[in-house]
Amino acid sequence: MPIPLVLTGYGNVGKSFVRLLAEKHEDCRTRYGLEFDLAAIVRKSGSWIADRIGSFFSLTGPSPQVLESLPDWLPGRSLSRVFDHFDRLGKRGALIECTPSNWRTGEPQLQFLHEAFDRGWHVAAASKGALVVDFKNLRDKALSKELALKFSGATAAALPTLDVATVSLAGARILGFEGILTGTTNYILTRLEQGLTFAEALEEAQAKGIAEPDPSMDIDGWDTACKLLLLANASVGTKFTIKDIPVEGIRKVNARMIQDARASGNSLKLLGWLSEVAGVYRGEVGLVPVPPSHPLYRLTGTSKGIVFRTDTMGQVAVTDGKSDPRATAAALLKDIINIFRRH
Amino acid sequence: MPIPLVLTGYGNVGKSFVRLLAEKHEDCRTRYGLEFDLAAIVRKSGSWIADRIGSFFSLTGPSPQVLESLPDWLPGRSLSRVFDHFDRLGKRGALIECTPSNWRTGEPQLQFLHEAFDRGWHVAAASKGALVVDFKNLRDKALSKELALKFSGATAAALPTLDVATVSLAGARILGFEGILTGTTNYILTRLEQGLTFAEALEEAQAKGIAEPDPSMDIDGWDTACKLLLLANASVGTKFTIKDIPVEGIRKVNARMIQDARASGNSLKLLGWLSEVAGVYRGEVGLVPVPPSHPLYRLTGTSKGIVFRTDTMGQVAVTDGKSDPRATAAALLKDIINIFRRH
Repeated sequence: MPIPLVLTGYGNVGKSFVRLLAEKHEDCRTRYGLEFDLAAIVRKSGSWIADRIGSFFSLTGPSPQVLESLPDWLPGRSLSRVFDHFDRLGKRGALIECTPSNWRTGEPQLQFLHEAFDRGWHVAAASKGALVVDFKNLRDKALSKELALKFSGATAAALPTLDVATVSLAGARILGFEGILTGTTNYILTRLEQGLTFAEALEEAQAKGIAEPDPSMDIDGWDTACKLLLLANASVGTKFTIKDIPVEGIRKVNARMIQDARASGNSLKLLGWLSEVAGVYRGEVGLVPVPPSHPLYRLTGTSKGIVFRTDTMGQVAVTDGKSDPRATAAALLKDIINIFRRH
Repeated sequence: MPIPLVLTGYGNVGKSFVRLLAEKHEDCRTRYGLEFDLAAIVRKSGSWIADRIGSFFSLTGPSPQVLESLPDWLPGRSLSRVFDHFDRLGKRGALIECTPSNWRTGEPQLQFLHEAFDRGWHVAAASKGALVVDFKNLRDKALSKELALKFSGATAAALPTLDVATVSLAGARILGFEGILTGTTNYILTRLEQGLTFAEALEEAQAKGIAEPDPSMDIDGWDTACKLLLLANASVGTKFTIKDIPVEGIRKVNARMIQDARASGNSLKLLGWLSEVAGVYRGEVGLVPVPPSHPLYRLTGTSKGIVFRTDTMGQVAVTDGKSDPRATAAALLKDIINIFRRH
């Protein structure tokens, strides 16, 4: 029995996910005994429900079809209608959430995730908004219904931050962690080290599609703060909201600051970190001179990484991992494989 | 209902596991909703079956009791008798395998693992022998019975090599990997870089308990080869036996070789690697000059690490992680949490 997947959002990540699923469909069956079927897509302009198993291949074939021109296209976004359809068929599966979400309100993702759990569907999310805003309620709801809430794609894509924190370090106490969690800021800092001014580095990053047209989410440190919040809340049970995290960005970085770090043999990085002070966890985002012996020192350009400190396993570092739409799609695929696979 | 655990082997790792379980018992319950009960220990000299839930705490309390002096001690090793006991109670759980095993014959571990699966028990193993000798049959048996076969403790302890390969990279195709998988050889190479002779470095490693009295398993590269074999067979489905892997050790390393690597800015490391040549995976162990930009370059002393290359997620590196008996016990605990936890 194929496992139905419902995709919300059909931008770069959503489209990459559809292509990747078509490419890896057979592989999932042979390697994991899992057959996934993309059974519906919901976007702002409307919804598509597949008329038969495997219909989604027509979206990626040699003459890919436009969603809006498919016979089953229904104008008007309605995830409820899609879930109703599968309820009538007695089918449940996983929601693949790729809608751009507002990290102040969490919408529209927040509504999607609550509805998925209310309807008995697992969730793999690539966007952060709803999780940043309402992590505790979402996780409690998922737990109470024995449903999975995975969000590798929202916490550094192919860099397995969330897996390592929750699976590889299961049973260990995380004493703290520190990470380069945003590729854009690391790229700009690398270019500053190479002699560019901040304005030049930012412009270059935007020209290359590394920085957004409005880069403030990244360069003011909020993207790092959101990922730090999610990783901490998911791994050590903090109840951080974004207001609990002091955040410093990279706008003020100048040649002098870069040189000062260099003069001591260090490299200036924007880190998000969790530490324990007087028995209480604190999260913070800021500029830190990182010494050469540290696992994050060598990470230049858009590379990311995180170092966990634990009570029983010592320090565990995980670095690199791509962060393009295909890698984010791969993180979503990984999450659903891990939700449904047996040992 | 507590989940019964049967421990085979009661050396440094086995004892560390008992202590760690006592320490983390409550934490497992509150964080994961899992209550583990160490219900039996089987060692060469005999077996102990707990008379009541939580009896194992008496092995770790302020006046820890000697296994052989406990009222329920039965001379003569018999795992079958232990499984018979739990069969009568209608209980099944996990075997925690910590017996030193021969990596040429796999015994006595091989017999233990087959029996565990035959009796419907999951397995978390810290020793490599049986897995190196008979991985395919063991895994097929586990899969056919929907039982877990985990062995994080046998593949670099707290360094999450196996988790990253099978969980974090699920769905990705591993194109190859390379790792520093043996702390002992890396320690000796580091000391050679610092000017010691091979004999001095080996003697020091032995004095510190880093190298075994008979160090050949490590310094001739076999420990690395065994871990490489297990990681490859588990992650990409190769059917390597130890004979398929060309192995070079570090005995022949001299000051000249170290200096030659240094002169090019590199550091000489003993790596185990998997690569794909003409569509076929090859495993190999040997000395490689590693450049500073590589994630394994900075790993000195007993530190370990591995770098995976994938089709969809790029390069993912995981490094560090302790490798003492407590860390190996932590890897076992992690494995059983991941076997039994819900999402």
